Amino acid sequence: MRLDIQTKDFSYPVCIGNLEQITHASKVLVVSDSIVAPLHLNTLLSKLKAPHIFTHMISSGEEHKTWQGIEGILESAFQANLSRKDLMLALGGGVVSDMVGFASAIYKRGIAFQIVPTTLLAQVDASVGGKTGINNKYGKNLIGAFHPPRAVHIDPLFLTTLPKREFKAGMAEMVKKAVCFDKDYFKWLESHPLEQHLELGIYKSVAIKASVVAQDEKEEGLRRGLNYGHTFAHAIEKAGAYSTHLHGEAVAIGMQMANALALKLGLLEQATQERIQALLKTYGLDLPYHIADFESFYKDLQMDKKNTKGICFILPKGLGAFVAREDMDKSTLKEALHAWL
Amino acid sequence: MRLDIQTKDFSYPVCIGNLEQITHASKVLVVSDSIVAPLHLNTLLSKLKAPHIFTHMISSGEEHKTWQGIEGILESAFQANLSRKDLMLALGGGVVSDMVGFASAIYKRGIAFQIVPTTLLAQVDASVGGKTGINNKYGKNLIGAFHPPRAVHIDPLFLTTLPKREFKAGMAEMVKKAVCFDKDYFKWLESHPLEQHLELGIYKSVAIKASVVAQDEKEEGLRRGLNYGHTFAHAIEKAGAYSTHLHGEAVAIGMQMANALALKLGLLEQATQERIQALLKTYGLDLPYHIADFESFYKDLQMDKKNTKGICFILPKGLGAFVAREDMDKSTLKEALHAWL
Repeated sequence: MRLDIQTKDFSYPVCIGNLEQITHASKVLVVSDSIVAPLHLNTLLSKLKAPHIFTHMISSGEEHKTWQGIEGILESAFQANLSRKDLMLALGGGVVSDMVGFASAIYKRGIAFQIVPTTLLAQVDASVGGKTGINNKYGKNLIGAFHPPRAVHIDPLFLTTLPKREFKAGMAEMVKKAVCFDKDYFKWLESHPLEQHLELGIYKSVAIKASVVAQDEKEEGLRRGLNYGHTFAHAIEKAGAYSTHLHGEAVAIGMQMANALALKLGLLEQATQERIQALLKTYGLDLPYHIADFESFYKDLQMDKKNTKGICFILPKGLGAFVAREDMDKSTLKEALHAWL
Repeated sequence: MRLDIQTKDFSYPVCIGNLEQITHASKVLVVSDSIVAPLHLNTLLSKLKAPHIFTHMISSGEEHKTWQGIEGILESAFQANLSRKDLMLALGGGVVSDMVGFASAIYKRGIAFQIVPTTLLAQVDASVGGKTGINNKYGKNLIGAFHPPRAVHIDPLFLTTLPKREFKAGMAEMVKKAVCFDKDYFKWLESHPLEQHLELGIYKSVAIKASVVAQDEKEEGLRRGLNYGHTFAHAIEKAGAYSTHLHGEAVAIGMQMANALALKLGLLEQATQERIQALLKTYGLDLPYHIADFESFYKDLQMDKKNTKGICFILPKGLGAFVAREDMDKSTLKEALHAWL
């Protein structure tokens, strides 16, 4: 199966199915991490045809998505003296593709990169759309660039080695898109256990993202819906120093927080909230969470990239639609979040 | 006088003349350096209307155009919690605008910036065209982004405090454009002492760059002519750790090297070479230089961003035209450069 994603400057293919041969006429720098490489690097290299292939390994984990990690990738690129005709290739989860995307965006003012995502989260979400970046002490993805890949190769076979916890976490991004953009997809997810419909489930999720991103590449309107749950998630991840929750887990908790706020504002009915919660529960994403310090949590919400006036909350409006609200006062928010305080 | 520069995404004004009021509806972070700020920051602030104004100072000089400098700017931006609607404003020479441009390109995946250039070099060249970046141990501007400013405000009055050496260095970029793109402008420069025709001289130079950049924003063809002298200049600057030569001085030497190569290849007549040399001499840019270590110099040339196969040399083809050549062997180059060995 194949989708084509239209960006402002070019379109790129997202191929879903058995990994096919990847050919490049000049140098390729393959970047992977310490967990994925031992499992899948050889498979990838057996499919890669290029005159010169270099590899660079980064430490696994969101806590390594830092400038130091980018410097390491750039160092390997300069050592290999990659030119603007050469290619970086990311093999791994969202951390790897976000970092390789950012490194390739700023190396010699931008070279091409491609992605072979190996986690469910990266396959259904992170690998498509051109957002790249790193974290810093102020929060998540606060430094980065819009730099779309030139191709994404999604092979569900890579998921066979994915820890169950990570697989479930990836599911959160699928639910996210169903709730904000596509009621039919939500119903489909309710009635089709993902493990048995993996390729089609991924395809449908990528298709929604492709359509959204094509309409709003730079997140000025529609694309903001993809941030449902994320304003909260970023604060949750930061509070845990990017190591206690997987990104998808934080998004799942964040969606429930957004739902609580939407319920309070009359945007969401309780029955719908419960359906979303039930679907998350099916994948073990009905997770407990406690906001240790509301003031600090609130401060982190204020750092979100989407904010221009107040904190920008993406709230579901029933199933298949959303609103962006920047007019929330602190006390309303605190009341809505009482279950987590 | 005003020129409008068309980029792929938007157009921006370059205003040449007395600095007019700059108005922004939200926060502005003004970035300047330790030499320019004491001279001109108050003038700028008196012309700037915005609800919240922050300032950040960087160390003056090309040797500070590093990631550490970018981190400092980003830190001030996060402290001020700039949103995507806010603005960075560069007041200074090319180092300041390159750094503010890059910082604004990657802050929250990109916010707007404007430039008030205070050196001749920045006014006629660096401030227009959208190239931003920093140096690293591998060379000059090797990390960066294409990120055009939203406006450039050129006031020749700022040049009254510019050291003579820097003024002359800026002239090199004007000669560069005349040689590669515009024979009439070359003749005009020969017959019009710049000090007495400053505003018009700047205007003509910016107009050439505007036209070139509009035709080839990402440097895939025509824009490469703007790199005349620069392949050599980057190696010269690196050899001097970015502190012995001003950028324009290195470019002037680099143009003479390119001319020697062009002469050897029959692209340039000796009489034309001498005219270019004479014009440079008028501005004290007929500078001596010695290549201390040819092997290391050659290695630095190989790191140039424009290279895809061999080293890419931009060579004048008479006056008003150029060719890009990647087929030069090492011995031909060494022979052409004998005067500097």
